Amino acid sequence: MEAELKQLLSEITPLDEAAMAKARERQAQLAKPPGSLGRLEDLSVQLAGIAGQVHTTVARKHLLVYAGDNGVVEEGVSSSPQSVTLMQTINLTHAKTGASVLAKHFGCGITVCDVGVNANIREPLVVNRKIAYGTQNMTKGPAMTREQAVQAILTGAEIAKQTQADVLGIGEMGIGNTTTSSAIEAVLLDADVEAVTGRGGGVTDEGFRKKKDAIRKAIALNRPDKNDVVDVLAKVGGFDLAAMCGGFLGAAATRRPVVIDGYISAVAALCAFRLCPNVRGYLVPSHASFEIGYKLAMEAMSLEPMFLLGMRLGEGSGCPIAFQVLEAACAIINDMATFDQAGIDDSYLDEIRKGDKFTVEAKA
Amino acid sequence: MEAELKQLLSEITPLDEAAMAKARERQAQLAKPPGSLGRLEDLSVQLAGIAGQVHTTVARKHLLVYAGDNGVVEEGVSSSPQSVTLMQTINLTHAKTGASVLAKHFGCGITVCDVGVNANIREPLVVNRKIAYGTQNMTKGPAMTREQAVQAILTGAEIAKQTQADVLGIGEMGIGNTTTSSAIEAVLLDADVEAVTGRGGGVTDEGFRKKKDAIRKAIALNRPDKNDVVDVLAKVGGFDLAAMCGGFLGAAATRRPVVIDGYISAVAALCAFRLCPNVRGYLVPSHASFEIGYKLAMEAMSLEPMFLLGMRLGEGSGCPIAFQVLEAACAIINDMATFDQAGIDDSYLDEIRKGDKFTVEAKA
Repeated sequence: MEAELKQLLSEITPLDEAAMAKARERQAQLAKPPGSLGRLEDLSVQLAGIAGQVHTTVARKHLLVYAGDNGVVEEGVSSSPQSVTLMQTINLTHAKTGASVLAKHFGCGITVCDVGVNANIREPLVVNRKIAYGTQNMTKGPAMTREQAVQAILTGAEIAKQTQADVLGIGEMGIGNTTTSSAIEAVLLDADVEAVTGRGGGVTDEGFRKKKDAIRKAIALNRPDKNDVVDVLAKVGGFDLAAMCGGFLGAAATRRPVVIDGYISAVAALCAFRLCPNVRGYLVPSHASFEIGYKLAMEAMSLEPMFLLGMRLGEGSGCPIAFQVLEAACAIINDMATFDQAGIDDSYLDEIRKGDKFTVEAKA
Repeated sequence: MEAELKQLLSEITPLDEAAMAKARERQAQLAKPPGSLGRLEDLSVQLAGIAGQVHTTVARKHLLVYAGDNGVVEEGVSSSPQSVTLMQTINLTHAKTGASVLAKHFGCGITVCDVGVNANIREPLVVNRKIAYGTQNMTKGPAMTREQAVQAILTGAEIAKQTQADVLGIGEMGIGNTTTSSAIEAVLLDADVEAVTGRGGGVTDEGFRKKKDAIRKAIALNRPDKNDVVDVLAKVGGFDLAAMCGGFLGAAATRRPVVIDGYISAVAALCAFRLCPNVRGYLVPSHASFEIGYKLAMEAMSLEPMFLLGMRLGEGSGCPIAFQVLEAACAIINDMATFDQAGIDDSYLDEIRKGDKFTVEAKA
């Protein structure tokens, strides 16, 4: 199975520089001060590099939500009971949760994939790719086997590859997954646990202490190898995070832009980026998560968030809004007039400077 | 006419606190960690306060663009010739410019109103409310008379009031209007010209010096009274800015949320806020403008931008994206399930803690 992962990584190639150059050229011809549409211009160049052509579309938008439970919740690290994973996994398919309400409102498809929820789910809209009934408690041993980690990554990638869409977004549902995200980030970035651990869903002071203790204990016990992402995901990660990492890889392998939601999604993207730096070109940030570890994870990928909405819900809730920004970027490069088409030239200038009035007929 | 302005200001009343309390209550019932949707929650509370009810809509979105020329461009303060105002005013009605492309893409209406373009415009889609053929050069005397300033404000307000929409956005077209914006801001905030003046559309080093010199000269010569917004707009402002100020007032007077675009729009909102502090409740920020004066203007209104896109095009180009965020806020409060509806309770908790597996049927 490691061979399949290697194969997947080899499918992820750099962006098309020639198409990007052409997109930059077109942006320079559009009737506006150079660079005045900022990141909308940058995004249009990135989309060109991904698609290999200047004019692209993100009309078909799709949110992928990977759900799984985490054994570490036994340690009292979360503000919500584990049952919330199950219920919200189902609710996500009924457009009842934050991310799914936004997806529906903005016309985005949504796929909810169970890779490790601690229950049998009889909701046919939840795609059943369960690897196990939740991970093991990482404070007592590895969260999962190496084989399971690879399987989760490949499953996430397969779901992404199969999804018919122009742009994907990666979300999650899994009580306890800010704990696993912080553990992964602490290892991958060699960061202090204190610097990357926040309160997640809003844990109490006592829960917050337990959360940081659990992360320290899990790292000390399992000694994940920071240079081996699969080892890190297996020992202190989760099925949700591993599958999300795969989601980013699958999107990039099929040359589609892929949106990072908040903190957990950013850590999954960081895993994908560490597995294959070419992934970077396909990543699109969304909102600045409230979680403390978000900024460090994004910096490690040289990415900056696009909006400041103080959100920390997860589920992929930032993706539908980011899709709108991508739509804006496409509209600009596809539909704005060039200087030639806008008919702006300096021929009227002298008249105006002399203070004369002049009349211009409307053009068709 | 000053009596009419007084009347307009008296129509702008505080938000409905009872409706806001009810919106906060509903947000607390929605199935998510408290506050986890951040500013989407805040916006829903604000919209409730504006409409006087918890469930609101921003389905009808409309961009108002006020266009006018500025006599100060004689001083070489701008990177673009004055003729650009005219051409882009026309192009705005043909969905060819940045803001109008975005408005069309996102299904927003657009009204382009000529309050002072230095030409006769024979494009019927441009609403002709011309007050004069551009302002006077403010480095040689007041930009306009006090009567003209009031007329421009009232015109802007009237256009806003007449517009059938659930939410409005305020944009502009007027070469030289970052110069007038910086002059107004320097006076209103008692700020150093250096601290509030940027390069606008991208003026050269020489043009940048001329721009700051022109602002200093205009303020020194005209001595606008910082406690009299109309005096400031008349002496160192523009028809576009005065009408935009009126646009904010008109939206607030008819109890609609109104979106601030970038720097120029923020200065116009500041003028409206200084005329009537109740306006504050109706204002919705959009992107963080690249222009240096933006931050100070927003701080003076205790507002923070919602997105970081490095934009500095103007025209109202940030508004269509902000409308999408408002739509997201409405979708959340209107369509998300409450904890009761989501069926999340702790009854499964003990089973999970014991490590048993259980099955939950999908609910209708």
